[in-house]
Amino acid sequence: MNYQTINFESKNAIGLLTLNRPERMNAINYQMRDELRDFFIKRMDDLNTRVIIITGAGKGFCSGLDIKDSTITKPENNYTPKLAYELQQKFSDIIVFMRRCPQPIIGALNGAAVGAGLSIAMACDIRLSAPEAKFSAAYINIGTGGADMGSSWLFTRQVGLGNASRYLLTGDFFSAEEALRIGFVQAIVPKEKLMDEAMRLAKNMAGKSPLGLRLTKEALDRNVGAASLEDAIKLEDRNQALCISQLATVMRKTEGNK
Amino acid sequence: MNYQTINFESKNAIGLLTLNRPERMNAINYQMRDELRDFFIKRMDDLNTRVIIITGAGKGFCSGLDIKDSTITKPENNYTPKLAYELQQKFSDIIVFMRRCPQPIIGALNGAAVGAGLSIAMACDIRLSAPEAKFSAAYINIGTGGADMGSSWLFTRQVGLGNASRYLLTGDFFSAEEALRIGFVQAIVPKEKLMDEAMRLAKNMAGKSPLGLRLTKEALDRNVGAASLEDAIKLEDRNQALCISQLATVMRKTEGNK
Amino acid sequence: MNYQTINFESKNAIGLLTLNRPERMNAINYQMRDELRDFFIKRMDDLNTRVIIITGAGKGFCSGLDIKDSTITKPENNYTPKLAYELQQKFSDIIVFMRRCPQPIIGALNGAAVGAGLSIAMACDIRLSAPEAKFSAAYINIGTGGADMGSSWLFTRQVGLGNASRYLLTGDFFSAEEALRIGFVQAIVPKEKLMDEAMRLAKNMAGKSPLGLRLTKEALDRNVGAASLEDAIKLEDRNQALCISQLATVMRKTEGNK
Repeated sequence: MNYQTINFESKNAIGLLTLNRPERMNAINYQMRDELRDFFIKRMDDLNTRVIIITGAGKGFCSGLDIKDSTITKPENNYTPKLAYELQQKFSDIIVFMRRCPQPIIGALNGAAVGAGLSIAMACDIRLSAPEAKFSAAYINIGTGGADMGSSWLFTRQVGLGNASRYLLTGDFFSAEEALRIGFVQAIVPKEKLMDEAMRLAKNMAGKSPLGLRLTKEALDRNVGAASLEDAIKLEDRNQALCISQLATVMRKTEGNK
Repeated sequence: MNYQTINFESKNAIGLLTLNRPERMNAINYQMRDELRDFFIKRMDDLNTRVIIITGAGKGFCSGLDIKDSTITKPENNYTPKLAYELQQKFSDIIVFMRRCPQPIIGALNGAAVGAGLSIAMACDIRLSAPEAKFSAAYINIGTGGADMGSSWLFTRQVGLGNASRYLLTGDFFSAEEALRIGFVQAIVPKEKLMDEAMRLAKNMAGKSPLGLRLTKEALDRNVGAASLEDAIKLEDRNQALCISQLATVMRKTEGNK
Repeated sequence: MNYQTINFESKNAIGLLTLNRPERMNAINYQMRDELRDFFIKRMDDLNTRVIIITGAGKGFCSGLDIKDSTITKPENNYTPKLAYELQQKFSDIIVFMRRCPQPIIGALNGAAVGAGLSIAMACDIRLSAPEAKFSAAYINIGTGGADMGSSWLFTRQVGLGNASRYLLTGDFFSAEEALRIGFVQAIVPKEKLMDEAMRLAKNMAGKSPLGLRLTKEALDRNVGAASLEDAIKLEDRNQALCISQLATVMRKTEGNK
């Protein structure tokens, strides 16, 4: 697939994904939705890219569903439950594959992240925010609910149930400062230094054992939902045993090559 | 049931519930317990009320179990395990039905919330606090444990496991400021403006799609406990498909009526 | 077992455990690992000790796996997957038994907690930190993953998924101040007052009903992973019924003794 609404460059194990419809504040039209879904599915087999940074072209990060493409309020589209479900699932798939791909994803939130754009920010592993960025779970303002594209799972686990409820039930905007206070973003970085800081974090991660790094993302992803500490540790222990015995294998080969 | 310890008024889809035993700092006697349980059970079928604000009459929010009614320390009551369990469950039922009713609940915490009163605050979706309010998980001070009326589920998911343990294991009081810092309350509002701010939030929510709003509360409630992101999204997608196809149905009817 | 790398004193129901290899910043060698595992297994039957404080001798809290004992990078050790798994499990067992023993554990973090030392801090119920303490999930820097000894379960539930990912994926150090901000430590206390404050909290807890206190730790531990509020309340209600009917039993005996 030759992408037109997004741009991707990968170099030295670090990939930079840019949402690239700046004239629409990077709103997600159906083409961008399909391209993002395809992009993250492809990353599952792309072990050369070990860390991904995602940002938006121009002033905004992502303003959510492009209302020009939003057909749900047009009676002639006759959304049956089945059709509506299929429409919805193509959006939520983006989130599922962002979490399932092996690369930790750094969100470099250069500007507003709204609705589906906020969900994409939530599905990143780590978020850095420009001071002027702002956030809204706007889905609840268009006749649908505030639990959309993973928000009721991810946001509750990032900022706590009370803070998540406060913003998902109202769609109210919140600032970068508030996002830092409640634990949604991990740091606020001046806009002109945002990409440098994201790259610094990415290089740090790209310097780790590739197997160790991707098993860490996977363990965080599964164990934030594990049924108990004991279950979580069963997965962790196997991960570490994989890493340790893999190290031993590699070292034996290296020894043999001397 | 004609309530005597609580007061309820509902207007323009917003209901105001007042704990109304100010002479006892709104302590919960057995009558209030039964009235609260009845009240929230009734709300399950009250789709005219779409948002609930809960506050306390007078200086306090709710000082917990009324010790005048607390019979557990009186030997003559001979609490067998069975009797003790039945006593306890009538209290915890209040919490279960607060979470199960379709209305988002805003806690307008005008003063101290202690023991069972703190649990009622925890079971709200969003909490606003007056600066002079203070909080204590006092259950652990009366010979019982600190995990009571949902506290070990709700508080851990609102303020994190470390902060929850710190207050549930000790019963120590914490201030409104600390409650804001750890994510228990979402804002501190001067007492004279507390009800205005709660009403502003309530009107915001009452302005959303009624179906979308109550599916949002339900999704938050279930997905904070879902086994995985993938499971959570299955519920979210169905919710959104319900909303979208419902919109389409309504619009078709409107078209037909032209 | 006569411990050589750790020291334990118990008095008035409060036990003080000191990691005692100050010349190595209390690094965990295989002997300390086995002693810690043995220590926490023994605590399961030690109902005389009702609260435990854990701290480090000298400047540090615990610098993690002792690299002098760390044999995983030596090819001659030939770590097969099976051997690596068994090695790993002996470490993670410490965490499992810290959570399973009935005593709430207060971490008095006097200095740096790194790698396995950070996991031990995570497995405490409550953490107090000296201002000069610092923290790193260093496991990811040695060829293994950042989800180790319970970190992917505990840290996510203590500081939220975003903040946990930020530190587990990078191994970056974070300060006591940052640890307080994100909810990892519950208070920062000047080093010279750290043990006094830990003791004050411990005495508070030791003054509660012993049964109520240990059921509280158990309920927090299980219900942070319970499948739903309703399930969590089933456990809580039974705990409280146990406490209430136990109180009644004790009081009846006391009456009979008059």
